[in-house]
Amino acid sequence: MSMRTEQAHATANGVAKKEQANGGPKGHELSPEESEAMKDSFENHEPVGPPVYGTKKLDCSDAEWRARVDLAAAYRLCCLEGLNEGIVNHLTASVPGENHNFLVFRFGRSWEEVTASNLLKMDLEGNVLTGDGKCDSSAFFIHSRIHEYRPAPTGAVFHTHQTAAAALSALEIDSLPMLHINNLFFYDNVVIDKEFNGRVDGDQEGRRLAAKMGTKRVLIQANHGPIVAAEDVPTAWWYLYYLERAAKLTLAAMSTGRPLRTISDKVGAEGRDNFDKLIPKMFAPMTFEAAKRRLLAGPHADFLT
Amino acid sequence: MSMRTEQAHATANGVAKKEQANGGPKGHELSPEESEAMKDSFENHEPVGPPVYGTKKLDCSDAEWRARVDLAAAYRLCCLEGLNEGIVNHLTASVPGENHNFLVFRFGRSWEEVTASNLLKMDLEGNVLTGDGKCDSSAFFIHSRIHEYRPAPTGAVFHTHQTAAAALSALEIDSLPMLHINNLFFYDNVVIDKEFNGRVDGDQEGRRLAAKMGTKRVLIQANHGPIVAAEDVPTAWWYLYYLERAAKLTLAAMSTGRPLRTISDKVGAEGRDNFDKLIPKMFAPMTFEAAKRRLLAGPHADFLT
Amino acid sequence: MSMRTEQAHATANGVAKKEQANGGPKGHELSPEESEAMKDSFENHEPVGPPVYGTKKLDCSDAEWRARVDLAAAYRLCCLEGLNEGIVNHLTASVPGENHNFLVFRFGRSWEEVTASNLLKMDLEGNVLTGDGKCDSSAFFIHSRIHEYRPAPTGAVFHTHQTAAAALSALEIDSLPMLHINNLFFYDNVVIDKEFNGRVDGDQEGRRLAAKMGTKRVLIQANHGPIVAAEDVPTAWWYLYYLERAAKLTLAAMSTGRPLRTISDKVGAEGRDNFDKLIPKMFAPMTFEAAKRRLLAGPHADFLT
Amino acid sequence: MSMRTEQAHATANGVAKKEQANGGPKGHELSPEESEAMKDSFENHEPVGPPVYGTKKLDCSDAEWRARVDLAAAYRLCCLEGLNEGIVNHLTASVPGENHNFLVFRFGRSWEEVTASNLLKMDLEGNVLTGDGKCDSSAFFIHSRIHEYRPAPTGAVFHTHQTAAAALSALEIDSLPMLHINNLFFYDNVVIDKEFNGRVDGDQEGRRLAAKMGTKRVLIQANHGPIVAAEDVPTAWWYLYYLERAAKLTLAAMSTGRPLRTISDKVGAEGRDNFDKLIPKMFAPMTFEAAKRRLLAGPHADFLT
Repeated sequence: MSMRTEQAHATANGVAKKEQANGGPKGHELSPEESEAMKDSFENHEPVGPPVYGTKKLDCSDAEWRARVDLAAAYRLCCLEGLNEGIVNHLTASVPGENHNFLVFRFGRSWEEVTASNLLKMDLEGNVLTGDGKCDSSAFFIHSRIHEYRPAPTGAVFHTHQTAAAALSALEIDSLPMLHINNLFFYDNVVIDKEFNGRVDGDQEGRRLAAKMGTKRVLIQANHGPIVAAEDVPTAWWYLYYLERAAKLTLAAMSTGRPLRTISDKVGAEGRDNFDKLIPKMFAPMTFEAAKRRLLAGPHADFLT
Repeated sequence: MSMRTEQAHATANGVAKKEQANGGPKGHELSPEESEAMKDSFENHEPVGPPVYGTKKLDCSDAEWRARVDLAAAYRLCCLEGLNEGIVNHLTASVPGENHNFLVFRFGRSWEEVTASNLLKMDLEGNVLTGDGKCDSSAFFIHSRIHEYRPAPTGAVFHTHQTAAAALSALEIDSLPMLHINNLFFYDNVVIDKEFNGRVDGDQEGRRLAAKMGTKRVLIQANHGPIVAAEDVPTAWWYLYYLERAAKLTLAAMSTGRPLRTISDKVGAEGRDNFDKLIPKMFAPMTFEAAKRRLLAGPHADFLT
Repeated sequence: MSMRTEQAHATANGVAKKEQANGGPKGHELSPEESEAMKDSFENHEPVGPPVYGTKKLDCSDAEWRARVDLAAAYRLCCLEGLNEGIVNHLTASVPGENHNFLVFRFGRSWEEVTASNLLKMDLEGNVLTGDGKCDSSAFFIHSRIHEYRPAPTGAVFHTHQTAAAALSALEIDSLPMLHINNLFFYDNVVIDKEFNGRVDGDQEGRRLAAKMGTKRVLIQANHGPIVAAEDVPTAWWYLYYLERAAKLTLAAMSTGRPLRTISDKVGAEGRDNFDKLIPKMFAPMTFEAAKRRLLAGPHADFLT
Repeated sequence: MSMRTEQAHATANGVAKKEQANGGPKGHELSPEESEAMKDSFENHEPVGPPVYGTKKLDCSDAEWRARVDLAAAYRLCCLEGLNEGIVNHLTASVPGENHNFLVFRFGRSWEEVTASNLLKMDLEGNVLTGDGKCDSSAFFIHSRIHEYRPAPTGAVFHTHQTAAAALSALEIDSLPMLHINNLFFYDNVVIDKEFNGRVDGDQEGRRLAAKMGTKRVLIQANHGPIVAAEDVPTAWWYLYYLERAAKLTLAAMSTGRPLRTISDKVGAEGRDNFDKLIPKMFAPMTFEAAKRRLLAGPHADFLT
């Protein structure tokens, strides 16, 4: 906070402050340093409420329970936002401290039925460690391999056929066009995989995807849909949700056939760097906690069971 | 009301009136003066019910409470109409009589959680005068500067990423095309800002936006989305809602690739002048009261708390 | 029913019929006459249940009450289907036997609030005969003039800004393209009015619209939206609903930029003639009764009050 | 399951397995044979719960009751997914063991009202064997003829005007473009009928459609909409739902006017063959049971009555 602001803060909400604020020659025009200090004063946000994790309903570590709650919430948020499709596609989260063991929903459930307790825990050999039933084979080959081989910290891997991003996957494009501030999150952060081999049904294709994705946060599989990977579930949800927003806007703008206003590489790169600092530490977790509170207030409240 | 109409009014709803009305050579064909008088007789509408403000739940002025209720309602209406996005973007209202102090939602809340009581009151130096937590830094720099510097009476400033208007912001256009009667509200009333500088994160960018917007009601930020400013919350809601309707129609019409039927400047300017008289005094407040009653009847009824 | 079918009908649902049906040289291949007779046997449908009119809650004729219930239902169906916009636009119904007196909602109500009892009854001079408040001036000039001057039996006039039809009104087209079986309802039944004069605010413009519309069921006002007129509310609802379906499909097909498959004039004219026989007497009323039962089962059940 | 995996399975979820899994030179890289064995280990899925059929509420065979429940569920799923339109279009299912007798909803009901008990049972001569009222004549001619004449096992025939597939029917295309993995289900499995004759109102047109469709799963009628036929209701639902998903994506991709990334015939044919093995036996029934459970949890739970 700048000195000027600190003074204002210190005075009562009365006449003195008003005079200072409006009577001076500059009004509230700040120097770059004052502006920066002002901005910094807004960067540390207290959580609105306690994190939503309910009470543990399974014999597992606290860290696993929290991963279960967040992952179940992500399945339900996809339902709320219309990002799911039938009973296919899959979201997974690794179990902290358990060497790539991961949580996934059981094949045969609709996403509306997924709860923290009924998620399966699997290991990288395909064994179901907790829960009844199995996941789909594609789920196993995509997710186990990305959790193991992706050369970046990976706590969550999400794969959907969400409409707009899937439609982009059918275009001969090389990257997500930089058309909107939301698209900046994805600047040089999306790999477009141009090789479509049908259903992902084996170890080799799973590893190919992990390698192709590298350290990026999004892989758009040709003629298929996105895979989002991130350090944790809230961050993966952020990118999944905003990818669909960005893709929808991109399709709408393209559909007009008019010249597009494209963001420069300079602004794109700076914007991405800026957001990279804010998203995982602040935007994503606060968005996700708000989203879980929303779930609690509606028909998806049982995700917590 | 014309004399002819007054006579009709005076007679009973019986044979005499019917004969006069249908038996004459002209039927209900009116002279321009009669037509104008008839129109005038429809211009003064009584409210359908008492204004929706509930009972004050905070120690504040009545005027502040009313601004709080209206602003909370606007957040919820955005949820109803699908104009919100995650926990970002922001709507603010100034507190009447308090020298640009303004109300804004706390960063970290979803818009579904905003109520009249939990809105923050902030001053132009960034101090939180009422409430816990802080707003987002972008919210502060956009809104405080427009409330202070916009050279027009400004009681409400709304910023969203609403899908259709945001998609227009990615096109190389100079104005909102005049394709529909709803677009007339925006004739020469929209500034397209072609300068995109990434996230609004400082005093200077906030003041640039305020100056760029000037006295217009809408600024469409390049590659970003709209800012709507108006004398009060109901009027800002009117423009925000209809901007999205107009933008949606514009995208749909453009997407066909067919020649567009564009309204002439003459009809556009006349239409805008006509609507400018009707919107703030009649259409906007009556629409907003009806909208608040709708909120009361559904899952958003707690905006009033 | 053909003789062959009658025989089948007479036999028990057993071996004999099966043998006849499948053992013969023709199977169920019918001659054109048999096919026609078979078709005719399906044309007279009993209603599924008693018509939905509740109990009269107002001192008015039974015919007026029924018109009120149907009109209130139409307002609510527009809400269900997303065809309404704010508190503007208007649906009206004439009161049977009362010389063009018509029912309309009060300006200031949202469509979600319209009920059978709170509709206004107005006469052609602009007097409110039953109810509090007034309608909007545009509502009066559009509807009163079409009810009085349209040269075809007119029991209902609906005007909306429904998104897809409104988008078509912004294209330089001369008619609704014949792209789908639903579009056939509108073959040579839609007038595209190319003259846009801003808000409808006078007697002359109202009469111009009535004359322009003539005996057609739909007028698409340039840069504005549709007016549908029909002999009764159920029929007007049919055309309003299907116009939006047809317009939506038309926009979607056009948006691809691909060559369109257009129905020939011959099939279009025959199809229209065929549907003209079925819609007012069978399809529209049965659709509307089903729709009212749907309303009764949900949050709009109070339309009947 | 490969030997390696079996060993992993056999060891406890402890240190030993971890060492084996991650310590070896290959990690989890599998040979093609191991990968195939791993995949096979995921192909047999136990149902998540008992099949949803409730208790029989009608004097009919168990097989008929199950067909009734599934068909009523399909009507309601169309409501959930927005695939229905007014009270027209029709879904039918044959009654197992009853020589093409088929179930269909009564004309005049909305799809929201269809239940297992109120479906009509009809024979191929047009007689109503169970239930009150009649179906629409188009329903009879389309469905009875496809049930009887289609040269492939046909337990269910679905006809809708679902928006995206109907829009494709208005384009001069010869097949569904292969743009997405979901489109593979339809590779060489869709007939585009280019002959539009208006309403289907006779025996000859019904038989023409059955012959045109042949053994394919989908017929897209020119300027009309899809007919899906399959061995049972769950499989027909799968194809109906995914056809709309595929059509929507196809329209979205085409609307951009950009070059499309098309799947090769080789991958298309292989993909289709692969899915043909999985859909009727596993994907479709598990999807359908999950969908019925979803219906039970919401406002459509009475489909089971």
